[in-house]
Amino acid sequence: MVVLLKQNPNKKQLDNLMDWLHSLGLSVHCSQGEQQTILGLVGDTSSVDIDLIKALDIVEDVKRIQEPFKNANRKFHPDNTVIDIGTGRIGGGDFQVIAGPCSVESESQICEIAKSVKASGASMLRGGAFKPRTSPYAFQGMRAEGIRLLLEAKELTGLPIVTEIMDLSQLSLFEQVDIIQVGARNMQNFELLKELGKTNKPILLKRGLANTLEELLMSAEYIMAGGNERVILCERGIRTFETMTRNTLDLSAIPVLKNLTHLPIIVDPSHATGKSSLVLPMALAAAAAGADGLIIEVHNDPQHALCDGPQSITPDAFDTLMGAVKSILPVCMKY
Amino acid sequence: MVVLLKQNPNKKQLDNLMDWLHSLGLSVHCSQGEQQTILGLVGDTSSVDIDLIKALDIVEDVKRIQEPFKNANRKFHPDNTVIDIGTGRIGGGDFQVIAGPCSVESESQICEIAKSVKASGASMLRGGAFKPRTSPYAFQGMRAEGIRLLLEAKELTGLPIVTEIMDLSQLSLFEQVDIIQVGARNMQNFELLKELGKTNKPILLKRGLANTLEELLMSAEYIMAGGNERVILCERGIRTFETMTRNTLDLSAIPVLKNLTHLPIIVDPSHATGKSSLVLPMALAAAAAGADGLIIEVHNDPQHALCDGPQSITPDAFDTLMGAVKSILPVCMKY
Amino acid sequence: MVVLLKQNPNKKQLDNLMDWLHSLGLSVHCSQGEQQTILGLVGDTSSVDIDLIKALDIVEDVKRIQEPFKNANRKFHPDNTVIDIGTGRIGGGDFQVIAGPCSVESESQICEIAKSVKASGASMLRGGAFKPRTSPYAFQGMRAEGIRLLLEAKELTGLPIVTEIMDLSQLSLFEQVDIIQVGARNMQNFELLKELGKTNKPILLKRGLANTLEELLMSAEYIMAGGNERVILCERGIRTFETMTRNTLDLSAIPVLKNLTHLPIIVDPSHATGKSSLVLPMALAAAAAGADGLIIEVHNDPQHALCDGPQSITPDAFDTLMGAVKSILPVCMKY
Amino acid sequence: MVVLLKQNPNKKQLDNLMDWLHSLGLSVHCSQGEQQTILGLVGDTSSVDIDLIKALDIVEDVKRIQEPFKNANRKFHPDNTVIDIGTGRIGGGDFQVIAGPCSVESESQICEIAKSVKASGASMLRGGAFKPRTSPYAFQGMRAEGIRLLLEAKELTGLPIVTEIMDLSQLSLFEQVDIIQVGARNMQNFELLKELGKTNKPILLKRGLANTLEELLMSAEYIMAGGNERVILCERGIRTFETMTRNTLDLSAIPVLKNLTHLPIIVDPSHATGKSSLVLPMALAAAAAGADGLIIEVHNDPQHALCDGPQSITPDAFDTLMGAVKSILPVCMKY
Repeated sequence: MVVLLKQNPNKKQLDNLMDWLHSLGLSVHCSQGEQQTILGLVGDTSSVDIDLIKALDIVEDVKRIQEPFKNANRKFHPDNTVIDIGTGRIGGGDFQVIAGPCSVESESQICEIAKSVKASGASMLRGGAFKPRTSPYAFQGMRAEGIRLLLEAKELTGLPIVTEIMDLSQLSLFEQVDIIQVGARNMQNFELLKELGKTNKPILLKRGLANTLEELLMSAEYIMAGGNERVILCERGIRTFETMTRNTLDLSAIPVLKNLTHLPIIVDPSHATGKSSLVLPMALAAAAAGADGLIIEVHNDPQHALCDGPQSITPDAFDTLMGAVKSILPVCMKY
Repeated sequence: MVVLLKQNPNKKQLDNLMDWLHSLGLSVHCSQGEQQTILGLVGDTSSVDIDLIKALDIVEDVKRIQEPFKNANRKFHPDNTVIDIGTGRIGGGDFQVIAGPCSVESESQICEIAKSVKASGASMLRGGAFKPRTSPYAFQGMRAEGIRLLLEAKELTGLPIVTEIMDLSQLSLFEQVDIIQVGARNMQNFELLKELGKTNKPILLKRGLANTLEELLMSAEYIMAGGNERVILCERGIRTFETMTRNTLDLSAIPVLKNLTHLPIIVDPSHATGKSSLVLPMALAAAAAGADGLIIEVHNDPQHALCDGPQSITPDAFDTLMGAVKSILPVCMKY
Repeated sequence: MVVLLKQNPNKKQLDNLMDWLHSLGLSVHCSQGEQQTILGLVGDTSSVDIDLIKALDIVEDVKRIQEPFKNANRKFHPDNTVIDIGTGRIGGGDFQVIAGPCSVESESQICEIAKSVKASGASMLRGGAFKPRTSPYAFQGMRAEGIRLLLEAKELTGLPIVTEIMDLSQLSLFEQVDIIQVGARNMQNFELLKELGKTNKPILLKRGLANTLEELLMSAEYIMAGGNERVILCERGIRTFETMTRNTLDLSAIPVLKNLTHLPIIVDPSHATGKSSLVLPMALAAAAAGADGLIIEVHNDPQHALCDGPQSITPDAFDTLMGAVKSILPVCMKY
Repeated sequence: MVVLLKQNPNKKQLDNLMDWLHSLGLSVHCSQGEQQTILGLVGDTSSVDIDLIKALDIVEDVKRIQEPFKNANRKFHPDNTVIDIGTGRIGGGDFQVIAGPCSVESESQICEIAKSVKASGASMLRGGAFKPRTSPYAFQGMRAEGIRLLLEAKELTGLPIVTEIMDLSQLSLFEQVDIIQVGARNMQNFELLKELGKTNKPILLKRGLANTLEELLMSAEYIMAGGNERVILCERGIRTFETMTRNTLDLSAIPVLKNLTHLPIIVDPSHATGKSSLVLPMALAAAAAGADGLIIEVHNDPQHALCDGPQSITPDAFDTLMGAVKSILPVCMKY
């Protein structure tokens, strides 16, 4: 951390600052110039609140140089985190595809999709039981009953299940869920993250639509600080000025995150683009960019397509996608 | 709502769509051209899920023309909502200023600030008990004890109190709180909004840092749909590419919202800008743009400024701000 | 400027870097820690290319601490730049309003508007002769003839004129123009800026719709580096995700720029918002935030409103706006 | 185009509007509901100025449904545009890689890089002669001399050359240049685009960093409206709130543009990410997403790396990249 002081700082205030920094266990190197004085703070600055220092009268600016996350930091944990989900391993060099409908709607719907995506090679089943909807007048999900139906589909197919939690009061319903998803809107629901840090479930943490990668890692850090180190990061598009796609899928996030953290990273091209025709090319691009897997929306019944968003693809389209992904993976994995 | 069909739509699918639209109580006007066919849907489309229609094979695009919010809509409720908070009315043409520290830290701190901001003309006291912090290693607030201290300051000064809730499990602690604040990160915590819709407390709903004004109104709609119509909207800056300020304060939001909704709108220049030197000019600008009030961070002890963010102003600066605001209000209120 | 080195930097490469930095006239302070080494560069770093240093093998990151602009920097030029335009002074504590139509369309149109806005108190006339239009099929302006008509209106009313240049090949047509406007799309047309730096005309430089305030100041620096110090900055809204307004007017830019530079700053609420109903409240807010003036679109003929954008106000609305602005200015100027 | 009228529109004004719309050759379908009246305009609306209609008193809103671009529109030109550059074809199903240094610096530099990238399989040479730099104090390029050196490298290697024009006054210097590049900052320099529309050179048009895909296509339309149909689009990252990468590479742009237009699309991962370590994964991702080619920055001399930005890769890294791209192309081209 580097602290730039204002010109001619008050001597007493500077001494106070130096004492306080030393009391935090930091060593301080002072570069005094004619126009400016710079303090270089060396040591563990991850718990130093940058805003506190900026507020001081004698300080002009503060720049963080070390990352503020520790448990998630690849520097302190060089090996990839690998999460075994029974049907495969996420983060260990394999490529896992999670597939299923936007919302669980009925037993036959979720069971049919589960069988279908399994046949195409998916290793996990997704489906929304609790649905975060912008409008209070839109369908809010089957809730507890939705989770029950997902578990039936799991029993039928052997596919582990992933589903989203919206509030920590729902946690007891997730006991048999294999991976708990935290949606983009809850990425900074810190009370929820703390509770999930006390569980032993893998957590699929989606990037908020206006959150930086550093903030995503800090939210992972919330979960990991509680003792749960099994966090899967998910890039699902960020909000920009472009309106042709629902969000802008930030695939550079994959190699950037791979460099900063040992946690696995998957990509959700369905929500990011909001258009079924874009799911295949973006799934291939994500694989090529080095993702550890995908999460894909699949609906099963074109006649009832009214109940699915425009970003869902059919089982046939999903089968094609799986074939395409499988054929480029051997090449991509080499780089 | 306007539906643009693809060229040469399948007759049977079009009939199915028409039947379904009629079943929703909508009347449909069809404009058939050589190159395109347009359906104009007339009636209450607020509960129609635009994504459902977009997903249909025969549909190229759908454009919403009516607003999707009802309870919050000025068209159906032309008169301003006015919320009486004892020391004043929010939304009734008066201008209310809520002031206080970022975090409650001690009895003496909160009580001194309360007395000071009251003397300068604030009509409510704010202070954080539960603090949403990006880092798990940063101070998380005094929690229940913080609320207790706020209530002491209320007893001492008579100022009603505003404080933030972070999770619905905390709701029982807010029984004596006068206004419950929903922070920017929780603007789309829909489970929380639903619970708050069942209370009879005024809710201060902050705009999420990447949420549109329509989404802000939809979140207000969640609370109002539950029966609680006393919602105060708060503009507190949005996330953009500019880095000189923490966020970009969107003051156009004030006249835009005034036109769309009858709910009161206040502005938080402290969090939006993140710099104490910008609080006064942005407070004046908010008043000039037609806001119903302000929420301002004030810290009381420059010696202990380490515990306050760089966006806080001192009681003296707050006193100057109140003087400035009072002097331009009589002019602004005329327009 | 602060350079963070990678761990265990190559000794020879480090020596090369140090020699190069010294050759630039900088003194270098080295803070060697266990985990990282930091170089603090002290001296004039405004011409150091930050990217060059970042590209070195031994460098992990570089942070600029001094601003990269000099001529525009208030630190080196504490007094406000004041530009005398005959009918008033911009930047000297007065408040100037530039008004006129989006496009010059005919002699009677521009002359009538000129008389009308003068009567309401405008001190300059604006009008587009060369029009940057997104579509090649839209009206591209009257070009040279438009400038001729502006000059007629100037002769009639005595109002100095402001009009936009789109390419440096047009420069000879601007000899009698009082202020040359550089539009948002040309803010980083560096060849044009260099040419304008050789003229002795005041330049109205509009912020690009996705440009930071630092970039705006660097573009001003381009003009000033050529010897022309009379630059007027103009905030006209930035591109964000919000769609209710055409752009998001960033009024915080005013106090931020006032702190960084001595150049005057005016605001264009017409283009920023794109809606005539928002022009008055945003004009008042700009004045309250400390702007040195406004530039406002006014159209004169409601029957021919087809030729004006939705952001234009009528002469009557402009008269009301001028009254409102005049009544709050005495209060705002005090702060 | 759909026009939503305000409630109870003035009869005479409505008749005027209808007459005007008919005079434009449009047929108008009127859907009259209890709460609202909708006009559906059918016909060629590409030259209708949407803002003109929005400005009318009786109009509440206007929504464009047809795209405003014609020459660039795939609907009216279903076959891909293919541009033959001698060493290969862009847009015809092949994949072309343009490579070279950020700036031309010397004869030996550009000639060595040219030989090297040719050996690795590049089909064109890029190099900056005129350099748009944020700071007036940074190196501005070798200008005319830079173009001369590029032509020497072309003679030596047979590689066609691509270089950027910054102002239309430079056009005569580009006579022997094979492809003229329009940089991101000039994407809406309409005077330049018009002049380029009169040439018979292929134009490489880079997306502006805050421009929508529709605006990119409208700028292509400017060139095409002048008679020059050989436009190559280039995605090079957009400005967002994320700071870990210089810009956010929007790879969804590829399939979106492929659907809207027949023009070829290439990707610039070097400028988009600003980091050499991200160039390979993003190049692979671009190929996987369906791009027609890449433009890559390569520098040749690590000892003199000070003269290259951090986004440049070495000839060895480029050789690896070419191998990787070639190995996944046969798979990607199938989808």
